Amino acid sequence: MGGGPEAPLRDGERARDLLLAVLPWPEKAAEKSIAGIKEEFPNLEVHYIPEQYSERKEERGKVAVPEELQKRANIIATLAWLPATASNIPNARFIQCFSAGTNHLAQHPVYKDSDIPFTTASGVHGPQIAEWVIMTDLIHSHNYITLYEAQKKKEWVQSKGMQVQDRVGRRVGILGYGSIGRQVARVAKAMGMDVIAYTASPRPTPESKRDNGFIVPGTGDPDGSLPSAWYSGLDKESLHNFLKQEIDLLVLAVPLTKDTTHFLSTAEFALLHASNPSGTYISNISRGGVIDQTALIHALETKQISGAALDVTDPEPLPADNPLWDAPNVLITPHVSGSTTVYAERAFLVLRENLRRERDGGKLVNVVDRERGY
Amino acid sequence: MGGGPEAPLRDGERARDLLLAVLPWPEKAAEKSIAGIKEEFPNLEVHYIPEQYSERKEERGKVAVPEELQKRANIIATLAWLPATASNIPNARFIQCFSAGTNHLAQHPVYKDSDIPFTTASGVHGPQIAEWVIMTDLIHSHNYITLYEAQKKKEWVQSKGMQVQDRVGRRVGILGYGSIGRQVARVAKAMGMDVIAYTASPRPTPESKRDNGFIVPGTGDPDGSLPSAWYSGLDKESLHNFLKQEIDLLVLAVPLTKDTTHFLSTAEFALLHASNPSGTYISNISRGGVIDQTALIHALETKQISGAALDVTDPEPLPADNPLWDAPNVLITPHVSGSTTVYAERAFLVLRENLRRERDGGKLVNVVDRERGY
Repeated sequence: MGGGPEAPLRDGERARDLLLAVLPWPEKAAEKSIAGIKEEFPNLEVHYIPEQYSERKEERGKVAVPEELQKRANIIATLAWLPATASNIPNARFIQCFSAGTNHLAQHPVYKDSDIPFTTASGVHGPQIAEWVIMTDLIHSHNYITLYEAQKKKEWVQSKGMQVQDRVGRRVGILGYGSIGRQVARVAKAMGMDVIAYTASPRPTPESKRDNGFIVPGTGDPDGSLPSAWYSGLDKESLHNFLKQEIDLLVLAVPLTKDTTHFLSTAEFALLHASNPSGTYISNISRGGVIDQTALIHALETKQISGAALDVTDPEPLPADNPLWDAPNVLITPHVSGSTTVYAERAFLVLRENLRRERDGGKLVNVVDRERGY
Repeated sequence: MGGGPEAPLRDGERARDLLLAVLPWPEKAAEKSIAGIKEEFPNLEVHYIPEQYSERKEERGKVAVPEELQKRANIIATLAWLPATASNIPNARFIQCFSAGTNHLAQHPVYKDSDIPFTTASGVHGPQIAEWVIMTDLIHSHNYITLYEAQKKKEWVQSKGMQVQDRVGRRVGILGYGSIGRQVARVAKAMGMDVIAYTASPRPTPESKRDNGFIVPGTGDPDGSLPSAWYSGLDKESLHNFLKQEIDLLVLAVPLTKDTTHFLSTAEFALLHASNPSGTYISNISRGGVIDQTALIHALETKQISGAALDVTDPEPLPADNPLWDAPNVLITPHVSGSTTVYAERAFLVLRENLRRERDGGKLVNVVDRERGY
C-alpha cells in the first residue's frame, strides 16, 4: 500500500487481506484483471506467482511459494499448485481454482483432509463452446463446406448455396442444461429456434430451474426461462420421450457418468429418425463416450441423422485409421471448443465475484461439494 | 366453397374475396401456406397459377392468366407477373410482391400509371442473412478453416484450435439497421456482444427507432432497443466517427446508392485500423460496390483489418482472375446469403399479415413508396 493512507474500508471488507495467486500465465496476462480487482478492493494485497505451464500433467503445480506468503494468504487462486498441507495456510478462507473441475486435486491432502472451501471456474466455458455449437450447426445447414471448396477453386456457382435450411422455427434439444447448454439456448432462441431442455433431475419450480453457478455476464439463461418444455430422467424411457420431440439439433452437454455412457446408441438413432425423418443434427461437446461411436457411424452412413459435429471422440486423440474420420457428414475438431484467448481473464471474474460475495456476506459461487466431487 | 354454407364473416372481412396468386413455385410448395390462409380467412377464394421459373430475367412473368380471374381479383400475389394494364384488374385492392424490392416492376404500367398499393416481402431475408454473418464471423474467430483442413488430413492437433477469440464483450458495428442488421444485432447480443448501429437518418425517439416493416416472428429488434449507441449521417465525418468506435465486426447492410458507393475505401480502412489495431472483421451482405475493392485487397494484404467475409463482390460473378480471390483472410460466397428453403413460405407470411391488417382496418405493411422507389 506504500506509505500513504489506506483506503477506507467498505462494509464487510477486511483490512490487509492477502490474495495469493499461483497461476500458469505470465503476470502480464493477469495484469488487467488484477488491476480491476485492486480497484474494487483497495485494501487487498495481491501477490502473483507465475507458474511455468507444462504440457505434462505430472509437472504442473511444481512451483516454489515462500512459506511466509502461504501463512499469510487469506484467499488462494490456483490451477495446479497447492501447499503441502492445510497447516501451511492457516488463514486461508477459500481456494479459487481456475479450472472448471477439481478432479486433478481430489487426491491432495488439502482437498481430502481440510474443509477449506474450494471454488471452481465452472461456467467460464459457456460462451465459446456455445459458439462452437452454433458455428458447426450453421456450417452444416448453410452447406458452407461446399461453398468453401468452391472458393478455393475460384468458382462462383450460386446453385451450391441455394439449399440453406435456416434456423427459424427449428427445434434444438439440449441434453444437459448447464452453463454451456443455457448459452446455446440463448443464441438459438435469438435465431428464432424453439428450445427444449433435458436434465437428470426434474426442475418443476422456478427455483429449481435457476442456474446457481457462475454466469458470464450477459450470457446464458440465469432463470431457466428459455425452454418451451423441460424433460428429465436418467432412464431410457425418459430419454426416449425426449428424443421423440422432432429435434433438429441435438446438443450433448451432459457429464460422462455410468448413466450417460453410450447414452445415444442404435435405438436412440432409430428414434431420432422416426421422429424427424429429414434428419437430426448431433452436436457433441461433452465426452466421446456419451455416444456409441459404432452406432453413430452406422446412423451417419444410413442417413438416419443428417450429420454430426464432434469436438470429442472415443478415444482421444482419434487415431488416423479410425473409421469415424471417413463417415459422411461428420465434422470433427480436436477437443478445442472450450479454448479462448480470454480464459484467464474470465476465470478472474469468478474470483472477483467470490471476493465480492464474501465482502457482502453472501454465499460463495461454484463451491465444490466434496461428497459429490464437483 | 362447394355447395355448403359459407363461414360467417368476421369483422372487416369481405365475402367472396379472390386472392389471385401467380408465383414461380409448384402449387405443392405453396400448399401449406395457402391452407393456413384459408383457415384464417374461410371466405377467401384462392386461385393459384404456378409460373415456370426462368433463370433468364426477360422470360419471367410470362404466364397466361384468364382475364375473368384478373377482373375478379381483389388481392394479387406475384413475383414477376403483372396484368397488361391496371384496367385489367379493376377490383384489385393491393398487389403483394414476393420479392424484397420492386425495381424489376418499376417500369411496368401498373406500377407507373396506377395507384394500386404494392407491398413487398422485405424482411423475409433477415434470419438467413444474419445467420450467414454470424457463421462467417465464427469461422474466422474460431479458426475453423484450419481445423477443417486438419480434419481432411485426419489430423488431431489441438494447438490449431487454441487461439479462439470468443465474442463476449466484442463490438459489432452495423452499418444500415434494417431487418438484416437488426437480426444480426439480436444474435450478436445473445452471444454477449455490444451492438452499435448506424443509419442514414438520426433516430432519436423511440418511435423513430422502431422497425415498421415486416418482421419474421421471434427475430429482429422490433423497437430498436438493442444498440448501446446509435450513429447516423451520410457524410464522411459522421461515418468516420462511427468507424472510430473500436469495432470488432463491421457489418455492411446498407443499400447501394450514390452516397454509399465505395463507402469503405482507403481512408476508412486506415481509421478502422487506428481504432482497433487487433483488426476489424468486415462482413458485406449488401452490394459489392459499397466497398472500394482495390482498397479492400490492400487492407487485407497489409493486415489493416483481420479479414473479410463477402457474399457480394464487384463485379458479380467474380471472374476467376480477379485478385480478390487471392487476398488473405477473405471468405467469398456467390451472393447466396439470402437463400433459404422456406423462402415462399416466409413471403406468404407477409401476405397473410397484410390480409389480416386489411381485415382489421390497419395499415398494410411494406407498402412501396413510389416516389422513393422502395
